[in-house]
Amino acid sequence: MTRSGFLTDILSSIFERGAARLAERDDRPIEALCAALLSGEGEASGTRIAAALLDRYGGLDAEGKHAFFETLCEQYDIDTEAVRADAEAYARTHDSADLARLMHDAEPRRQELLRRLNRAQGATGALVRMRADLLDLLAQTPSFRRVDLDFDHLFASWFNRGFLVLRRIDWTTPANILEKIIEYEAVHAIDDWDDLRRRLAPPDRRCFGFFHPSMPDEPLIFVEVALTKDIPDSIHSLLLEDREQVGEDEATTAVFYSISNCQRGLAGVSFGNFLIKQVAMDLSQSLPNLKNFVTLSPVPGFNAWLASQAQRDGEEAQPAADAIAQFLASEAENRLEDNAEFLSRLAAEYLCIAKRRDGRPLDPVARFHLGNGARLERINPGADLSPKGIAASSGVMVNYLYDLKTVETNHEAYARNKEVIAARAIRALLNAKPPRGDQRRSDNVQRAL
Amino acid sequence: MTRSGFLTDILSSIFERGAARLAERDDRPIEALCAALLSGEGEASGTRIAAALLDRYGGLDAEGKHAFFETLCEQYDIDTEAVRADAEAYARTHDSADLARLMHDAEPRRQELLRRLNRAQGATGALVRMRADLLDLLAQTPSFRRVDLDFDHLFASWFNRGFLVLRRIDWTTPANILEKIIEYEAVHAIDDWDDLRRRLAPPDRRCFGFFHPSMPDEPLIFVEVALTKDIPDSIHSLLLEDREQVGEDEATTAVFYSISNCQRGLAGVSFGNFLIKQVAMDLSQSLPNLKNFVTLSPVPGFNAWLASQAQRDGEEAQPAADAIAQFLASEAENRLEDNAEFLSRLAAEYLCIAKRRDGRPLDPVARFHLGNGARLERINPGADLSPKGIAASSGVMVNYLYDLKTVETNHEAYARNKEVIAARAIRALLNAKPPRGDQRRSDNVQRAL
Amino acid sequence: MTRSGFLTDILSSIFERGAARLAERDDRPIEALCAALLSGEGEASGTRIAAALLDRYGGLDAEGKHAFFETLCEQYDIDTEAVRADAEAYARTHDSADLARLMHDAEPRRQELLRRLNRAQGATGALVRMRADLLDLLAQTPSFRRVDLDFDHLFASWFNRGFLVLRRIDWTTPANILEKIIEYEAVHAIDDWDDLRRRLAPPDRRCFGFFHPSMPDEPLIFVEVALTKDIPDSIHSLLLEDREQVGEDEATTAVFYSISNCQRGLAGVSFGNFLIKQVAMDLSQSLPNLKNFVTLSPVPGFNAWLASQAQRDGEEAQPAADAIAQFLASEAENRLEDNAEFLSRLAAEYLCIAKRRDGRPLDPVARFHLGNGARLERINPGADLSPKGIAASSGVMVNYLYDLKTVETNHEAYARNKEVIAARAIRALLNAKPPRGDQRRSDNVQRAL
Amino acid sequence: MTRSGFLTDILSSIFERGAARLAERDDRPIEALCAALLSGEGEASGTRIAAALLDRYGGLDAEGKHAFFETLCEQYDIDTEAVRADAEAYARTHDSADLARLMHDAEPRRQELLRRLNRAQGATGALVRMRADLLDLLAQTPSFRRVDLDFDHLFASWFNRGFLVLRRIDWTTPANILEKIIEYEAVHAIDDWDDLRRRLAPPDRRCFGFFHPSMPDEPLIFVEVALTKDIPDSIHSLLLEDREQVGEDEATTAVFYSISNCQRGLAGVSFGNFLIKQVAMDLSQSLPNLKNFVTLSPVPGFNAWLASQAQRDGEEAQPAADAIAQFLASEAENRLEDNAEFLSRLAAEYLCIAKRRDGRPLDPVARFHLGNGARLERINPGADLSPKGIAASSGVMVNYLYDLKTVETNHEAYARNKEVIAARAIRALLNAKPPRGDQRRSDNVQRAL
Repeated sequence: MTRSGFLTDILSSIFERGAARLAERDDRPIEALCAALLSGEGEASGTRIAAALLDRYGGLDAEGKHAFFETLCEQYDIDTEAVRADAEAYARTHDSADLARLMHDAEPRRQELLRRLNRAQGATGALVRMRADLLDLLAQTPSFRRVDLDFDHLFASWFNRGFLVLRRIDWTTPANILEKIIEYEAVHAIDDWDDLRRRLAPPDRRCFGFFHPSMPDEPLIFVEVALTKDIPDSIHSLLLEDREQVGEDEATTAVFYSISNCQRGLAGVSFGNFLIKQVAMDLSQSLPNLKNFVTLSPVPGFNAWLASQAQRDGEEAQPAADAIAQFLASEAENRLEDNAEFLSRLAAEYLCIAKRRDGRPLDPVARFHLGNGARLERINPGADLSPKGIAASSGVMVNYLYDLKTVETNHEAYARNKEVIAARAIRALLNAKPPRGDQRRSDNVQRAL
Repeated sequence: MTRSGFLTDILSSIFERGAARLAERDDRPIEALCAALLSGEGEASGTRIAAALLDRYGGLDAEGKHAFFETLCEQYDIDTEAVRADAEAYARTHDSADLARLMHDAEPRRQELLRRLNRAQGATGALVRMRADLLDLLAQTPSFRRVDLDFDHLFASWFNRGFLVLRRIDWTTPANILEKIIEYEAVHAIDDWDDLRRRLAPPDRRCFGFFHPSMPDEPLIFVEVALTKDIPDSIHSLLLEDREQVGEDEATTAVFYSISNCQRGLAGVSFGNFLIKQVAMDLSQSLPNLKNFVTLSPVPGFNAWLASQAQRDGEEAQPAADAIAQFLASEAENRLEDNAEFLSRLAAEYLCIAKRRDGRPLDPVARFHLGNGARLERINPGADLSPKGIAASSGVMVNYLYDLKTVETNHEAYARNKEVIAARAIRALLNAKPPRGDQRRSDNVQRAL
Repeated sequence: MTRSGFLTDILSSIFERGAARLAERDDRPIEALCAALLSGEGEASGTRIAAALLDRYGGLDAEGKHAFFETLCEQYDIDTEAVRADAEAYARTHDSADLARLMHDAEPRRQELLRRLNRAQGATGALVRMRADLLDLLAQTPSFRRVDLDFDHLFASWFNRGFLVLRRIDWTTPANILEKIIEYEAVHAIDDWDDLRRRLAPPDRRCFGFFHPSMPDEPLIFVEVALTKDIPDSIHSLLLEDREQVGEDEATTAVFYSISNCQRGLAGVSFGNFLIKQVAMDLSQSLPNLKNFVTLSPVPGFNAWLASQAQRDGEEAQPAADAIAQFLASEAENRLEDNAEFLSRLAAEYLCIAKRRDGRPLDPVARFHLGNGARLERINPGADLSPKGIAASSGVMVNYLYDLKTVETNHEAYARNKEVIAARAIRALLNAKPPRGDQRRSDNVQRAL
Repeated sequence: MTRSGFLTDILSSIFERGAARLAERDDRPIEALCAALLSGEGEASGTRIAAALLDRYGGLDAEGKHAFFETLCEQYDIDTEAVRADAEAYARTHDSADLARLMHDAEPRRQELLRRLNRAQGATGALVRMRADLLDLLAQTPSFRRVDLDFDHLFASWFNRGFLVLRRIDWTTPANILEKIIEYEAVHAIDDWDDLRRRLAPPDRRCFGFFHPSMPDEPLIFVEVALTKDIPDSIHSLLLEDREQVGEDEATTAVFYSISNCQRGLAGVSFGNFLIKQVAMDLSQSLPNLKNFVTLSPVPGFNAWLASQAQRDGEEAQPAADAIAQFLASEAENRLEDNAEFLSRLAAEYLCIAKRRDGRPLDPVARFHLGNGARLERINPGADLSPKGIAASSGVMVNYLYDLKTVETNHEAYARNKEVIAARAIRALLNAKPPRGDQRRSDNVQRAL
């Protein structure tokens, strides 16, 4: 323990030298390194060729990277004819050798290449960054999506929940990790280190993240939590610099007010559901007084939807459309306060009734939390009066409630029947004064327990 | 830091209770749990259903386990017709959506089931043990090999070198890990804790193992190393209780005298090659005086081969066969000492010339080290005079030498041309006095550098 | 984290070499090193001279050590004349400069020598071992007690409770610490590693020790705890190999059944009181179902006292003395079972009434626990039928009860009035049938709450 | 490992509650708590009374604290008459019991009080803060220096080098420690977290601090180090934002450019000497290419001395005094550059010749490094052009060189003969062109080796 800093020092210098030596010894072109890595040579080299290849990749310019992915895409694909034949053979025999052949042939060869690349020291993080590069190229070269399928498949397996480590992030966390929290916070920007300290250090604040053991300095996703006495109706009061702090024993409510994915290269691998539930479970055990686990969430598509509603016509819709248009056009200083109820009603409609073609809610945050089995609990007009909040959702935020006893049944109802689970008060909003004569508007809004 | 033991205590009780509560809540039959885990319900439940299923599995008897694997084998297989159609579609379009469909359909559905099982706390180790159960059933029900293919495929990905952690094992290692070293040592049995201390505590001893972060208390493989002044010719002198210890600065040679795989459930996932090379590299950096990295290895198939040779007939072979038969039949106390040279010559022939049908050496240990790119360095008669050593190899042991500068070219020669790389002295043994008239016997024994 | 074993390896070789180099550079005689260390040279040398001196001491034989302590005793003592003058000056002036001079002069100079010795790497442990050497010499050279006063004074300050670290010791504890538990266990010997595992691994067992940060591998004192459903009346049932284990949630009682000091060199520095109370407090928080904290303690002086009682004469005492003599002389197999009540009564008398000249109980274990504020709770005949237990106390063991709410008042009563706090049943034993006519025998046995 | 953050969470809440409960239970006045702590009650209470007393102290206002120290000063002092008698007795008997009595009586009773206070959780840091309070009161109440003597004595023993832990501080250090580095940096202020990152993160920067195990989050002292190719002559080039970084293998020189004590309450306990030497030794082993260990140090008293020199008169001194006065009065923009040589010569005189009454150099930084055995190596005019640097020393900084082979002899010469060890070039400066006719000016400037 005594000299651990010093030791790390020795270590890093030894290994940096070692790794550099390893990597510099191989000057074949990157295509040759790919071939070598997949050959028997790759087996014997231990991790040398993998390290050399990653090192080479790191030095490529945009064009070089494009060429590299082109190689992966075209040279290391599937032999469809073999797959067809294997499938027929296995259908006939049901023999494991035939199944093995089919499984082998139906996997693009680049997948094994990626697995072998992962053998090198620090490779996992390098591959995550490599995939971020690849995602950037997809718009330009859509066929690269074929390569991306393999990253996607491997990462879903490698970043399986069972391999992730939940760590609390607080003011005793190493600075190199904390600077990433500042960088990655996607919902309510953290201004600087003082702001960060206010989010992490007080006894009524928590932050937890998932980490992967092979990327120990890189959070994958993190959630910020406030402990409160009530379900909050505004982000400002929650983040107020001089708010009154709540004692751990007084707190009844854990508010998940910000959740941020950190690694672009892990797009499509979903962690949020697991993170929220794990944190809720852990908090409920360490702080037995906690009764409510809620979010304070943005409604990112609300204003865009309002604008679309203002365009509607048709006899029935006209009055509502006009009212919305008038609201949107208003420059009155108090227009948000004065229209709080109007906005609440419309937000309820937007979240519960407005749907995509697949029958899911238009709002992406709603899809995430409802998909996790949460319940839409409350609509809070005037909850986010930042320019961003006003521009995106006229200041409206909402609470989703995670009740661990009902998340599974809620999810079932949502997944099977596309029901939006909402609190009684929200259902009442929808019924009270129908903005349009649509009688069936709340049919798919399920009664909450 | 101060109270970590106490903390762990709190932790384990909290989580054991939590996990127990989670698991006990679901009393559906195991087949229903499988179905639920793969459904949307599995998504929403976080890790609950996975935990329940593993818990249920843990309580099954032999028959129950057989039925469970039967379900996996038959209910969660591939739809070959879909695969065939997907392959044809992708051959036509080269479209990523078609490739995605093919990749999905060509993967047995049980693979996703296993991935979802892995989400539960402690699941990785449970799945490794589950596969050990499966391996036990293969002889009885060979079709389960189809299920095993999926374990094999997943474990190769999950236990990728990049995810393994190299840890030194010494006398400051926790006892719960050390007792596994005693249990798993496969080459030279460790009698008790005093014997273990002699293997780990002296300054001229090292032991290293690979661990997986999700199974932190379970070594996957470990290697025992002795630091010496010379390449050793006997296991007894190496392990002598009252041998003279060698100072770290005096040692010139690191002897890998025992390497043991620990997890039956990881059969087929190979770690040894990586472990030896990593340890050799690390030792060469921490102890710059080390010049030689060698094994002191058993020759497990030698006596069986001798017996087969004694059966040979044919004019040419007869004299040699007779000599071998005579040796094997001898009950003379000094028969090993007296036949040292004879045994050396035969061992050279066994290791360098005797081959399987695929052209690889008969001896499995030779296949392992030569396949890693090591060189057969020296043959040591009288090196293991334990009953086991005499019974298996008439006391002969050998040294394989790992020269990090040549392992790749050695491996190439072995992999491509099936050449056995052996030291000059061993080649000389083969040529000196041909036990049989076979002139081409050493053609595939390559000159060592 | 990944390579910590390897790192430790590098570390130890670097530092061993460094320390060796440092220490070997100074070949002055040990007396000259003492002088140098206390001079300005000692200031400038950092830790070099201290390391050299400890190294030199480590190489001394018995005679050399005696001479070294002789030097400390005679050359580095107090100048009494200066102290007298300082005291007079300070009495006059009450000036801080005079007080400083007095404090300096009244401290034997060897104390500063010991503090400077402690600067070297690993010195604290070396000084503790040095004091063990000194204690060995006290019988032979009582004047060395003057040197011992300084060790005593420094160690009381350095091993202050505030600097100690409480650590749980269990089956995941490093082996080099566990072997010391086997070695140091002073009450119920631990046979081997299997026996140790039975004491540490089961969920109804606990072990805690105090450690000092500068001696991280050396327990100072440890206590073994069993979690049970009842207050135990026998050590055998507690340690039975195939006893039924108690679930953490079922346990109502924590039994401190063995407490062992580990460092002879720390004799006189008392840790046990703090350890028991800290462990009781920690356990009561991590396992809220625990209601009782008791010991199962030996009665080491019981048989010796019985023998003395058998010698008593005088009219009144005779019948009792005869009965005891008869019991002691008995060779009947059932003599312990048959005399259970007789032994209980006598043990109550021994513990509550038999006193040293200073008015404290004769029994040292009783003095320790009663001095800590515990209550004598129950007397258990037939509780320790090991040869040692029979020889020392005719198989009797007792429970002392630690009730954190009453320990302070109990202690007060014991400390001020020498009252022995005992449970009602024990007081009843004393009163029931007075073995002798002594009417005032239980006056100083205080009613327990 | 997995849940350590969460665990810490549980821990802190459990212990905070526990400690609060403990502390709140005792509402006696603080004087009564002092008495209780020193009585037998203090023994039995474990750590409760100590915690209560510290808690009570923490709530005192300025007046209350003054009264508390008044009590310590007057009620817990020495009985001088007893000391005188003990000294006479011990002078007569040389008996250890008499020595014990003397040692006991000659120690103010408050020392034991402080030791018992230290038993409570977190007490060590609280006592360090308590002493900072006390130091604030010394000016007002000089007699409190008597109390301070006891803090001084205890802290010198408790913060002995052997108990300190050297830790590297870098960009992976916890933020709660790093914010203290920003706060405590005393030499070259750290502007913000970005500035801090520039001091810690680059591969050519190091920072090390001493910590005490009982105050793990509080650095006691730290030193900032730059790795360079040359001995630097300016702080600006060293701290330049866009300087070229030096590879670890290229660096030949370790520059200690800032060393800061962190704990006012530890005033008088000296760590700097040990820290510099330990860091120099560790760096020389981890980076074998390092040849020079130097400081880049301020010359804090230079301008004040110049001002005093400008006041000198007398025939001989006048010309020099006038030149200095002219320089000090100059407002020319280039006055520092133009007078570089003039300043160098005067700085050499200031550092080597100007002395306090006790014969030690006037400059406090010079006293520190020369007292450690360093050599005055080079004078750098124009090295610190910050307003602070210009105001204090006309921009001059100096290098002191730590040569581990000569520090002890240098120290001897300095300690015994008050010799200032300076490099040849500096001695040449003094001789070259004597600013005054004083022929004996450099007699006490010793030739450097």
